[in-house]
Amino acid sequence: MALIVQKYGGSSVGNTDRIKNVAARVAQYRGHGDQIVVVVSAMSGVTDGLIKLAKDIMPLPSEREMDVLLATGEQTTIALTAMALHALGVPATSLTGSQAGILTDGVHTKAKIQNITPKKIRELLNAGNVVIVAGFQGETPDGHITTLGRGGSDLTAIALAAALKADLCQIYTDVDGVYTADPRIVPGAKKLNEISYDEMLELASLGAKVMQSRSVEFAKKFGVVFEVRSSLNDHPGTIVKEESKSMEAVVVRGVALDKNQAKITIVAVPDRPGVAARIFKALADAAINVDMIVQNISHGSGAPTTDISFTLDKPDLLKAQKVIDGLQAEVGYRQAIANEKIGKLSIVGVGMRSHSGVAAKMFETLAREGINIDMISTSEIKVSVIIDLTKGEQAKKALHGAFIG
Amino acid sequence: MALIVQKYGGSSVGNTDRIKNVAARVAQYRGHGDQIVVVVSAMSGVTDGLIKLAKDIMPLPSEREMDVLLATGEQTTIALTAMALHALGVPATSLTGSQAGILTDGVHTKAKIQNITPKKIRELLNAGNVVIVAGFQGETPDGHITTLGRGGSDLTAIALAAALKADLCQIYTDVDGVYTADPRIVPGAKKLNEISYDEMLELASLGAKVMQSRSVEFAKKFGVVFEVRSSLNDHPGTIVKEESKSMEAVVVRGVALDKNQAKITIVAVPDRPGVAARIFKALADAAINVDMIVQNISHGSGAPTTDISFTLDKPDLLKAQKVIDGLQAEVGYRQAIANEKIGKLSIVGVGMRSHSGVAAKMFETLAREGINIDMISTSEIKVSVIIDLTKGEQAKKALHGAFIG
Repeated sequence: MALIVQKYGGSSVGNTDRIKNVAARVAQYRGHGDQIVVVVSAMSGVTDGLIKLAKDIMPLPSEREMDVLLATGEQTTIALTAMALHALGVPATSLTGSQAGILTDGVHTKAKIQNITPKKIRELLNAGNVVIVAGFQGETPDGHITTLGRGGSDLTAIALAAALKADLCQIYTDVDGVYTADPRIVPGAKKLNEISYDEMLELASLGAKVMQSRSVEFAKKFGVVFEVRSSLNDHPGTIVKEESKSMEAVVVRGVALDKNQAKITIVAVPDRPGVAARIFKALADAAINVDMIVQNISHGSGAPTTDISFTLDKPDLLKAQKVIDGLQAEVGYRQAIANEKIGKLSIVGVGMRSHSGVAAKMFETLAREGINIDMISTSEIKVSVIIDLTKGEQAKKALHGAFIG
Repeated sequence: MALIVQKYGGSSVGNTDRIKNVAARVAQYRGHGDQIVVVVSAMSGVTDGLIKLAKDIMPLPSEREMDVLLATGEQTTIALTAMALHALGVPATSLTGSQAGILTDGVHTKAKIQNITPKKIRELLNAGNVVIVAGFQGETPDGHITTLGRGGSDLTAIALAAALKADLCQIYTDVDGVYTADPRIVPGAKKLNEISYDEMLELASLGAKVMQSRSVEFAKKFGVVFEVRSSLNDHPGTIVKEESKSMEAVVVRGVALDKNQAKITIVAVPDRPGVAARIFKALADAAINVDMIVQNISHGSGAPTTDISFTLDKPDLLKAQKVIDGLQAEVGYRQAIANEKIGKLSIVGVGMRSHSGVAAKMFETLAREGINIDMISTSEIKVSVIIDLTKGEQAKKALHGAFIG
C-alpha cells in the first residue's frame, strides 16, 4: 500500500464535470489499495473573480483580507471534490490549509510554509478516507489565514509529500509532462521521462511554464521525487528527481526561449571600482529584477571605459530606463540603449558538466543559421544567449535539431 | 463608549456598492466613539450558487462538506467588508466563525451554538478595530466547520451580543422594523416601536418573515435586547425585549396571515385511545411538520367517532395524504379530505392575557365581513383561525382595522 499525494490545478477542476473526472481518477488509484491525499487549486476563473470584487472595493486591498478572500476559492473546490468522491462511493473528507496543519509565516499573499503537522491527515487516512486538502493556503501560529502566492498549490502538494513521507507525488496539469522544448512551436519536441531538479529549475526560470521555481527548490531541498503528468489522459509523465548517472549521458535536456525580456546597454561606463555596484543597487532599490548581466574588459588608456549590458522583464523596462537616466551625471557614462526586441535562448542539461564543447556547438549552430549573438551567459548546466527576437523560433528549432534531434 | 453588534443580511451586502454603504454606516457609528462588531451574511445569491454547484455533483451531498462549501459565502463577505472599511480609513479585521471563537455541536447544516470565547474579538476591539465576523458559521471542538442553518446570521449576532455583553444589538434588514401587519397588503399597517420576545415569536411562527424563531428564543433566553431596522435609511426600528407594563396596555400587537398552509380533515375516526397518537406518530416519522391540530368531542353511541383536522406546510401535502391513506385500514376512519385553499389568520399580543373578549371580538369582526371560520386554535397570547384563502387579505384588513386602527 503506497501513500500518494496528487495535485490538481485550476483547469483540472475548472467545472463540476472536471471535478467528477478528478474523482474518477482518484477512485481508480484508491481501487489499487493506495492511500491518497488530493491537493486542489481554486476552479479556474474563481480567483480572478474574487480579485475583481476586491478591486471594486478599493485599488490596493489589505493583504491580510485578500488572503481571507482568496482562501475561499480552494475551500470551495475541496468540498466539491469530496462530494464527487462520495458520489462514487469513496469515503473522503476535505480539510482547509489550516485544518490540514499547514503553518506559515505571516507574510500575507506570499507566505512561506514553516511547518506541517499532518496529524489530522494521518488519522483520516488511517480511517480509510481520501483526504482533500486546499492548496495555496495555510495559517499563522496566531490563527490568521495566509496564502502562499503563485504556484502555491504545487508547493502545498510537495510540502505535504515531504511531511507525510509519501511514496509518490503527482502534479497533474494540462500538459503530458516536461518537454525538450515547447511542443506547440518545435515539432520535434520530446517529452522527457525524467529530469533533475536543477535542470527543471533552469527550465522554470527560462520560460518553460510548467512549475514555479520555489516548488522545485522545495522538492530538491527535501528530496521529494515528483511526477508532472496530464489530468486529461493516462500517459506517464516526467519524473523530477535528483540527478543520476544516466541523466548525465544526456548533454542537453531542453531548449527554452524567453520572449519576455528586454535589454539595456550602458555605453562607455568609467571603469572604476563601485560603479557596477552603484548601478545595480539603484535597480534593486526600485524593485527591478535583473536577469543576465554582461560586462566585458575595458578599453582605452588613462580613463578606461567599459560597456555594461543587462536584461530584465519587459514590463520593467521604462522604470529601469528612468533609474539609469537618473544615474548619468553621477556615473558619467556616455549613453544608455534599450532594446525590447530580443529573445533569450537557452540550452539546459546536467550532462554539460561532463561534456566539453557544448557551448561551441550551440554558437556554431546559430552561426550556420545566420543568427547573430548579442550577449552570452553561462552557468554550470546552462548556456543562454540573447538574440534578435524575430530569429527566436528559428534558432530554437535549430538548437533542438542539433542537440536533441 | 458603547459596544454595538450590527448584523447585515444578504441583500444589505448584495454587491460591492451595498457593502460600501454598510461600511459607511459602520464608520458613522464608530465616529461616535463606539466599539462595533459587524456580523455579515453571504452576498445574496451566493449561497444559492454554491448549492447549485453541489447539486451538480450529487443530489444529496454530505452535510459536513456542504458546511465547508457554504461557509465560503460569509468568508467572502467579511473580507470585502473589512476592505470597504479600510477604504474609509477605519481599521477593521475580519474573523471567520471559527476564528471568532464560535463553538457549536456537530450537527452539520443546522448546528447549535454551544459556547463563544470572544477573546480574539475583545483583543481586536481594544486595539481599536472594527471586527467583522462571518455569520451563520462556527466550528466543532474537533475543528470541523459547521453552519447554523436558516436564520443563522441573526443567531450569530444575538449570541455574540450576549457573549460580549453588548450595549446594543442591531439587526439590519430591508424593512423598517416589525409591523402590525404586512405594510404591502394592509395600508394602515404601523411600525411598532417595541415588541416583546413572545409576541415576536408568535409573529415569526405565523408568517411574518422578519426573523427566525430560534434567534428570538435565544435573545429571550439570554435577555439580549435587539433592534430590527432598515439598512436603507436612518429611521429607528423596532426594539425587541422582555415585555413591560406599557406593552400590556396594547391588546393586539399584530395581525399575520400565513398562506402557505394546507389542511387535512380525517372524517369519522373511531374515538378510542391511541388513535391520534398513531396518526401523528406516522406523520412525524415521515418528517412532516404539523402545525394546528383540532379535534372536537365525539358523537354517536356504541362506537363513537370524531373528526380530526390538522394543518401543515403546503409542500408536504401530497406526502401527508399518502401517510394518511396508508393508515385507513388500520385506523378505520371513513375518509380524509385535503384542502390547500386555506389561510391561517392570527392576532398576537401579550395584552390578551389581561384582556378578555379578544377572541370574541375577532370572531364578530370576521362574521360582519361574512367570513366563515373553519378551525380555531388559541394560545395565551395568540388567536389563530383557518379561513378560506380567497378571503385572507380582506379578513386581515378587517382585523387590523378593528384592533389596531
